Amino acid sequence: MKSNRKILLEEHEMPRQWYNLAADLPGTLNPPLGPDGQPIGPDALAPVFPMNLIEQEVSTERWIDIPEKVLEMLWLWRPSPLVRAYALEKALGTPARIYYKNEGLSPAGSHKPNTAVAQAYYNKEFGIKRLTTETGAGQWGSALAFACSLLGMECKVFMVRVSFDQKPFRKMLMQAWGGDCVASPSEETQAGRDVLAQYPDTPGSLGIAISEAVEAAVTDKTGQTRYSLGSVLNHVMLHQTIIGLEAKKQLEKINEKLPDVVIACAGGGSNFAGLSFPFMLDKINGAEIEIIPVEPASCPTLTRAPYAYDHGDLAKLTPLLAMYSLGHGFIPPPIHAGGLRYHGMSPLVSHAVNHGLATPLALHQLECYEAGVLFARTEGIIPAPETNHAIASAIREAKKAREEGKEKVILFNFSGHGLMDLTGYDKFLHGQLEDYSLSDSEYERFTEVLKEYPVPVR
Amino acid sequence: MKSNRKILLEEHEMPRQWYNLAADLPGTLNPPLGPDGQPIGPDALAPVFPMNLIEQEVSTERWIDIPEKVLEMLWLWRPSPLVRAYALEKALGTPARIYYKNEGLSPAGSHKPNTAVAQAYYNKEFGIKRLTTETGAGQWGSALAFACSLLGMECKVFMVRVSFDQKPFRKMLMQAWGGDCVASPSEETQAGRDVLAQYPDTPGSLGIAISEAVEAAVTDKTGQTRYSLGSVLNHVMLHQTIIGLEAKKQLEKINEKLPDVVIACAGGGSNFAGLSFPFMLDKINGAEIEIIPVEPASCPTLTRAPYAYDHGDLAKLTPLLAMYSLGHGFIPPPIHAGGLRYHGMSPLVSHAVNHGLATPLALHQLECYEAGVLFARTEGIIPAPETNHAIASAIREAKKAREEGKEKVILFNFSGHGLMDLTGYDKFLHGQLEDYSLSDSEYERFTEVLKEYPVPVR
Repeated sequence: MKSNRKILLEEHEMPRQWYNLAADLPGTLNPPLGPDGQPIGPDALAPVFPMNLIEQEVSTERWIDIPEKVLEMLWLWRPSPLVRAYALEKALGTPARIYYKNEGLSPAGSHKPNTAVAQAYYNKEFGIKRLTTETGAGQWGSALAFACSLLGMECKVFMVRVSFDQKPFRKMLMQAWGGDCVASPSEETQAGRDVLAQYPDTPGSLGIAISEAVEAAVTDKTGQTRYSLGSVLNHVMLHQTIIGLEAKKQLEKINEKLPDVVIACAGGGSNFAGLSFPFMLDKINGAEIEIIPVEPASCPTLTRAPYAYDHGDLAKLTPLLAMYSLGHGFIPPPIHAGGLRYHGMSPLVSHAVNHGLATPLALHQLECYEAGVLFARTEGIIPAPETNHAIASAIREAKKAREEGKEKVILFNFSGHGLMDLTGYDKFLHGQLEDYSLSDSEYERFTEVLKEYPVPVR
Repeated sequence: MKSNRKILLEEHEMPRQWYNLAADLPGTLNPPLGPDGQPIGPDALAPVFPMNLIEQEVSTERWIDIPEKVLEMLWLWRPSPLVRAYALEKALGTPARIYYKNEGLSPAGSHKPNTAVAQAYYNKEFGIKRLTTETGAGQWGSALAFACSLLGMECKVFMVRVSFDQKPFRKMLMQAWGGDCVASPSEETQAGRDVLAQYPDTPGSLGIAISEAVEAAVTDKTGQTRYSLGSVLNHVMLHQTIIGLEAKKQLEKINEKLPDVVIACAGGGSNFAGLSFPFMLDKINGAEIEIIPVEPASCPTLTRAPYAYDHGDLAKLTPLLAMYSLGHGFIPPPIHAGGLRYHGMSPLVSHAVNHGLATPLALHQLECYEAGVLFARTEGIIPAPETNHAIASAIREAKKAREEGKEKVILFNFSGHGLMDLTGYDKFLHGQLEDYSLSDSEYERFTEVLKEYPVPVR
């Protein structure tokens, strides 16, 4: 049998701490700002998040212990296998050694549960009984419903209407786990009612859904509801670093060198951060690693948008965050990678890109689906449309290694399986998909709003 | 962390041989019969299957080596974890220790790829370039499309029309793996055309689809096409025994005793055989183990049908097999466990039940869905509707252990996840599902045909 095809870790080898990149980033992080343009303190976030998570959000400790109860839940599907993509390598005729972390084996099918169980745990510890959140295609909403189910908490999900209507299965999945899922904008919040009054036929957006979920949390008079975010924020990046920490141990276990290239798709940034941050530490310490966040050309946050202060949501309920942003009113084109259509980007990822620690890439969806089909027919696993972006980039790098005749090590994050996203494949295989670019005029219109806000330090 | 929550096996601990129950069964197996009522030899099967698989079909060797290339493919998702269901135990307040084998982590989401990769491999070794098969809900068709994709073979799937129309996603899954999937009955075969001429609006059945797939294989003049069956036959049972062989090693690894109860759902029998046959060997050797195949009350093959000779398909293209059968014209009620609606049952499983080695149980779907929802909300994984039958039986046994105050060890097969079968959950949670029983008159009508055939030795 081919050696090192799948590298596992035993329970005792599982990482016991998360890695916090904020401890090692060069320069100074731009703090979140309040409505007055001044940095906000932890207390300002208290109506939205429990204090134990706020402490993680602002922490600059390098290593943070993973609670035993969280490890127990993670152990349900972790450590995830590191897989050598022999068949893909062979199909590409590349001298590169390609490895991927398979995050698609979690009960919800993606990396999202890594932070969902942690967030639910900390909220429960703080006495919270109910979580609200938003979801686009449904990956995050189902992950949080899953986590709440394990801990006996209530879960309320505001799902972007167009996905709610077109993709009923993730809604059913949330309900099977006992979650309550409604289409956003809804009549249940002021933010939702305002949007519906003005645009009764709106397809919704993540920005609107976040506004609704935050409002539903902060207006609950019992004080037992908080909001939970599936990406963007520092503590979410932190929880996902278990991916990269495991990958490092797995590469060491087979005496493989540090990767030359680390690749992951990036929507809000958590999947990318999860794999790459532990390797970014090596890069900061002098290792030569190319780190590539991959985004859709139709939502070119890191490759085209300005580094600016912006709100995370349409109703401006969140603080201003320093990040690459297409503007909080951004309405994405209808590409199939629903998880990569957010207007902003994790401040930690944005800071890292801003300091040259990562080199983002934007790809069109046809190239990504082509890559996904090749992966499915060689490695055997159907990737999520988001994951196809990472695969397409890995294929580009593997071909480059072939041209250069270099034995590169390429590592990418297989962020989730595509068993619940097959419509995109069907359209692709029948020639019914097309690529979308953001026009200059759209770009100008969406980013116009950023001029109102302070400019972050670069 | 709770000890032994998930028991893994390393690559070198993976079983290297399959277990063949035919070597150890008491009594004499009733041979397959040809159209003349006489036992058929291997040659009669040659137009349908490659000779290397026919040799396995008739083998009475106890242990059969797994080829290295098959191990390599299995290693993509195997060994599957054995999981201690602590949270389910707690919810039930049972002193029983409940373990399950998680077969839902394969790329197609069920146990079916275990035999799909083996069958595709042996066919390819024999020079075959194209496989045909039938599929009901699509689990088997997608598994074979996956296996053919890994080996660069063509795959043609005849999918029962009602599933083809109502469940387009598994069809898309097959196509993503490069498989060609058509609704059955189709215009592509004589068997399909005959049915359509008589019943143009038929929803189709597995019996019809098998006829089409066999016909498409044997009429291919190039001689490079064979038929592949996802259950029922001896070699399919054989390939699935890796499940139970792994489970045994995993229980030994944590010094757990042999299970008191072994449970799996049973449609054609392969999922049940896979887990239970290696433990049946212990039972034959004197161990006290209760072995329970669980079937739907609406398709009560093992619990109600006679042990008889019958064809595996509607057009009577297959030999007569000695098995519990509801008659090859059986049209199942529309329950959601599409994989448990076959009229017959594996001859090996039938023989074992006939000799008291297993004690079948029939359950209604509402009890099964209730069990599935409890499992999802405690253990965190959404089970396939078929799997819910095993879970419901395990819950019954766990409650019995509670009443008896016994520390029983219960082992069941988690045959697949339900991420592609959420409609049933949605209907269940909204009170829109009902139970179906087979009426006496229906039973009489379907089994009438069996009177034409020879009676097998009991």
